[in-house]
Amino acid sequence: MKNPVISLLTDFGSADHYVGAMKGVILDICPRAQLVDISHEIGRYGIAEAGYTLAQAWQCFPEGTVHLVVVDPGVGSSRRPIVAEADGHRFVAPDNGVLTMALAGTVKLRVREIAAARYFRQPVSQTFHGRDIFAPVAAHLAGGVVPAKFGKLITDFIWLECARPVRESAREWSGKILKIDRFGNIVTNLDGATWEREVRGPFELSVGARTVSRLASSYAEAGGGEPFLIRGSAGYMEICINQGSAADAFEVGAGAPVKLFLL
Amino acid sequence: MKNPVISLLTDFGSADHYVGAMKGVILDICPRAQLVDISHEIGRYGIAEAGYTLAQAWQCFPEGTVHLVVVDPGVGSSRRPIVAEADGHRFVAPDNGVLTMALAGTVKLRVREIAAARYFRQPVSQTFHGRDIFAPVAAHLAGGVVPAKFGKLITDFIWLECARPVRESAREWSGKILKIDRFGNIVTNLDGATWEREVRGPFELSVGARTVSRLASSYAEAGGGEPFLIRGSAGYMEICINQGSAADAFEVGAGAPVKLFLL
Amino acid sequence: MKNPVISLLTDFGSADHYVGAMKGVILDICPRAQLVDISHEIGRYGIAEAGYTLAQAWQCFPEGTVHLVVVDPGVGSSRRPIVAEADGHRFVAPDNGVLTMALAGTVKLRVREIAAARYFRQPVSQTFHGRDIFAPVAAHLAGGVVPAKFGKLITDFIWLECARPVRESAREWSGKILKIDRFGNIVTNLDGATWEREVRGPFELSVGARTVSRLASSYAEAGGGEPFLIRGSAGYMEICINQGSAADAFEVGAGAPVKLFLL
Repeated sequence: MKNPVISLLTDFGSADHYVGAMKGVILDICPRAQLVDISHEIGRYGIAEAGYTLAQAWQCFPEGTVHLVVVDPGVGSSRRPIVAEADGHRFVAPDNGVLTMALAGTVKLRVREIAAARYFRQPVSQTFHGRDIFAPVAAHLAGGVVPAKFGKLITDFIWLECARPVRESAREWSGKILKIDRFGNIVTNLDGATWEREVRGPFELSVGARTVSRLASSYAEAGGGEPFLIRGSAGYMEICINQGSAADAFEVGAGAPVKLFLL
Repeated sequence: MKNPVISLLTDFGSADHYVGAMKGVILDICPRAQLVDISHEIGRYGIAEAGYTLAQAWQCFPEGTVHLVVVDPGVGSSRRPIVAEADGHRFVAPDNGVLTMALAGTVKLRVREIAAARYFRQPVSQTFHGRDIFAPVAAHLAGGVVPAKFGKLITDFIWLECARPVRESAREWSGKILKIDRFGNIVTNLDGATWEREVRGPFELSVGARTVSRLASSYAEAGGGEPFLIRGSAGYMEICINQGSAADAFEVGAGAPVKLFLL
Repeated sequence: MKNPVISLLTDFGSADHYVGAMKGVILDICPRAQLVDISHEIGRYGIAEAGYTLAQAWQCFPEGTVHLVVVDPGVGSSRRPIVAEADGHRFVAPDNGVLTMALAGTVKLRVREIAAARYFRQPVSQTFHGRDIFAPVAAHLAGGVVPAKFGKLITDFIWLECARPVRESAREWSGKILKIDRFGNIVTNLDGATWEREVRGPFELSVGARTVSRLASSYAEAGGGEPFLIRGSAGYMEICINQGSAADAFEVGAGAPVKLFLL
């Protein structure tokens, strides 16, 4: 029998005891769980960043994986913990839209409010629901408890507007920056499939005070120094500098606008 | 049969090879070990910080867990490696008081000096006892070697003074800051149980040049901007700012004094 | 049956989704794999740093371990992915010399070009071969696919010049700094065995504008404040300051030259 996999994605950082405490709780409930960190370095309360990160990672995991996401759970507010099922994967997260980007393309999505306190760690603290609610629920799920046991199906869960590029005119698109990665690559929300359909000639992509007009099919092809555009592994067009940081050169961050002009 | 769990807590950081080397050594001795990081980002030689972090995490783990702590082992000094048993958990650490806070409330504590060199990785280096002594001993423990095999019971192990709050007068307490976490929450050593017994009216908690006089029962209830006090998940009273950093606002760090006045 | 161990060493950092995606891919192919991080905090494109880190860690792991190294794979260039076998361990890495330092002392080294696309994740992206080539190959290796299935033996793999110290005269050696670790210890390339054979009296080791002339056999023996030289756990002579950072005091970094004078 395969050991169940639980992926973890939080904004807890890796210095404090928070992640270790959650993992301890999980292994106490589900000793066979295989724990895999996606990231704990999400910026504090970074729902959009966590959403992007989860969207890029979850489909790489085996079917049956439980993805445990604890970012800005709004402890003490009316924000509900939820469990979602889609494409053979399960997700445990706060109902704050952090799952939207991951779940956007899935079929037969089912979302439940987590309400069954008998699966919580008692007493539930006023501040650390990661340890007391999210981790034990993920562990019970991984251990075989069916989702229906945790609560009722809901349809009014938070669904964030996906930041799709907007066609401003026949030859102009507006988009934005989804993510700056460790290498300084600038991931835009211009998706690769649309690009290939729409952009068949020269172009100019403006970001901040600079523009890019070169397309490359690999980092190596691009050579050094000059920025170029490439279809990245996340499915989006990325602005890169081979062996350099495009984000530093362009002085931009996540959320900033980009403009695409077809010449 | 359950796989034995080994938690790891060090000040080695995660950039160097140190933690990886320790884990390799452990898996070579005890292939079934389930390795869980508590933190490797403890400040260099941060005995108090590691002690707090361990105290917050260890009870979340399943009974039988071996907690491996390598912070400031004083290699080459008279500082001994020790193995402690309490409440069904085992601890492998240097005898420098790093376990005090975790073990303070336990019963039937048994502590042994680790002396049996046959369980060490040979040759033992002059500088990296984490790899050569602590990791292999933890692995052998997890693999079933009984604690008595490692050395004799001792009673003169280092026991640090716990920084309990001091009642200065009927209406005044002195305490200190135990920890600043990633969110900038200021964890004081005023414990929640004492608070609930002693503080039944208005209060003023002064930290550095500022004061807090508001108690909240959740982050959300507190709203934004203003600092408030809350009973944190660690059992201590914490100064927080909802979605903000209290530590930045108060400009204080771990170890700084706090004063509580009952009004 | 033992679970196969896969160690991971990259320059991906731990904030982005890259490492999580690779681990998901591995567990999807080889559910029994035990995943162990060596480091993901290698400086971007840091081949020498990764080479040193791997060289220090790999021998601690059990025989049969697959070491997965993804640092500067040169995606889109003529740089090949390779699988190497030595001393009962397997290595999956780009052919950029990152394995040289680890493999330098091994016997019966066998290196193959990875060419069998049937083991890759399809479609292979233009930018993330860690996820699409290196991770799945490591997983298939760990799962029992024999190395010969991935491609042909090669002998023209990249082999970096090892930075050995140079004897300039009877009483003078030139070396360099291999690594600064988290504690500010300065690891030189003067190896401990050579030191013990050649240095039998007083010496002066100059690094930047400063010199060290004291040898210690442990941190504790050295006391505080003054820099000293010690045979480190990596087998090299290291410049240290007890409870302090030698690298900060000397203001030097990896790659800087050192000079040893026998007095």
